[in-house]
Amino acid sequence: MLPGVSSTVAPHRTTAAPSERVRVRRAHKKAAYDFDTVAAILDEALVAHLGFAHEGQPFVIPTLHARIGDRVFVHGSSASRTLRALGGGGLPACLTVTLVDGLVYARSIFEMSTNYRSVVILGDATPVTEHDEKLEALRAFSEQVMPGRWDAVRRPTRNEVKATAILSLPLGEASAKVSSGGPDDGQSEDAALPVWAGHVPVRMVAGDPVPCPHLPAGIPVPDDLLRPQLRA
Amino acid sequence: MLPGVSSTVAPHRTTAAPSERVRVRRAHKKAAYDFDTVAAILDEALVAHLGFAHEGQPFVIPTLHARIGDRVFVHGSSASRTLRALGGGGLPACLTVTLVDGLVYARSIFEMSTNYRSVVILGDATPVTEHDEKLEALRAFSEQVMPGRWDAVRRPTRNEVKATAILSLPLGEASAKVSSGGPDDGQSEDAALPVWAGHVPVRMVAGDPVPCPHLPAGIPVPDDLLRPQLRA
Repeated sequence: MLPGVSSTVAPHRTTAAPSERVRVRRAHKKAAYDFDTVAAILDEALVAHLGFAHEGQPFVIPTLHARIGDRVFVHGSSASRTLRALGGGGLPACLTVTLVDGLVYARSIFEMSTNYRSVVILGDATPVTEHDEKLEALRAFSEQVMPGRWDAVRRPTRNEVKATAILSLPLGEASAKVSSGGPDDGQSEDAALPVWAGHVPVRMVAGDPVPCPHLPAGIPVPDDLLRPQLRA
Repeated sequence: MLPGVSSTVAPHRTTAAPSERVRVRRAHKKAAYDFDTVAAILDEALVAHLGFAHEGQPFVIPTLHARIGDRVFVHGSSASRTLRALGGGGLPACLTVTLVDGLVYARSIFEMSTNYRSVVILGDATPVTEHDEKLEALRAFSEQVMPGRWDAVRRPTRNEVKATAILSLPLGEASAKVSSGGPDDGQSEDAALPVWAGHVPVRMVAGDPVPCPHLPAGIPVPDDLLRPQLRA
């Protein structure tokens, strides 16, 4: 039932023992520690959840994210007031992304579950302040959600870059969890129950593009508008 | 760009001023404080993200959730070790759900965004210990993801209920944020740029059911297998 996640993945395809605080304790057979698995899940997700605490209260904020190599960047406008309160240093954070892939219909409530891929990253989030690095992060956000768009639209001005708060997290302490396939009770006593069991994949799909009412006449919808994961 | 979220919603359709710590600071025109909006977003989501801190480190864990009236229950196996470490009292937590509804193709990178509905709940998560209340929460998890399934499959035994960690959060300090529609730059200088602009709705859909290989012959896929939001 989508239980907890964690462990350590060493970037750059090396391996390392998981640190104690992030070692997967539940459903550890589902844990994945390799960089490629972590990176692929991060790169597919449209949204991440950034967790941080301020004066003892945890906050979890949905945010855009994008990976560049072994760092993840997040759009940090909401966390930035917290960062400012802390004096601009690193902020202990957790970044989590979850892709729901399916529903698992078991023969019992106890065995029902969902199929999903998730990544949990622990680390200090630090503000990105340098113009060129912010611009690279903005390009990565754009490519993550709308590949190709960076070259098609107006790029950010210096003031727009300045107005955008961006945080960076290292991918050093991260883990993935992947749950897939059908129910586990196919060879249990429950398997004799006269009820349908199996799983149903789910995925995100795009509907028809809706043009802006102010769009000048004669501008067609580009063939490559959608990220590949959303194409039919 | 999916910035931060927050504020106070008073349950039971009353209203209240947002508490300072959760008042929406960015994009406040998108904030919604009414109970029905918060409840509808919670009820539609297949996954929630539970945030809590342990020894100064924030954790964000994907989890099943379900609302019963003005409380939200989460499957708390991962947080439960933290709760135990704290002695079983309440755990300051944040529960966030996010539904991505679309992509907004503006004429500039700065104005690109996503459409989404999100809810952020701040509160103390407490373990549910009483058998009947746990059973009600399990039923709510099941109905949220697979409506009708509770009556079709084997219900939890007393030991299964005991083995399941469930946390409860009040819905007292919560807020929703809703972003919808097309880009905001339709009447800006950028509107003259010869680039397609508009938005693309996205939604979760179900693929074909995959029967368990151990399913006895002659058990068809039920017509009402899928939650309404996943039906074609």
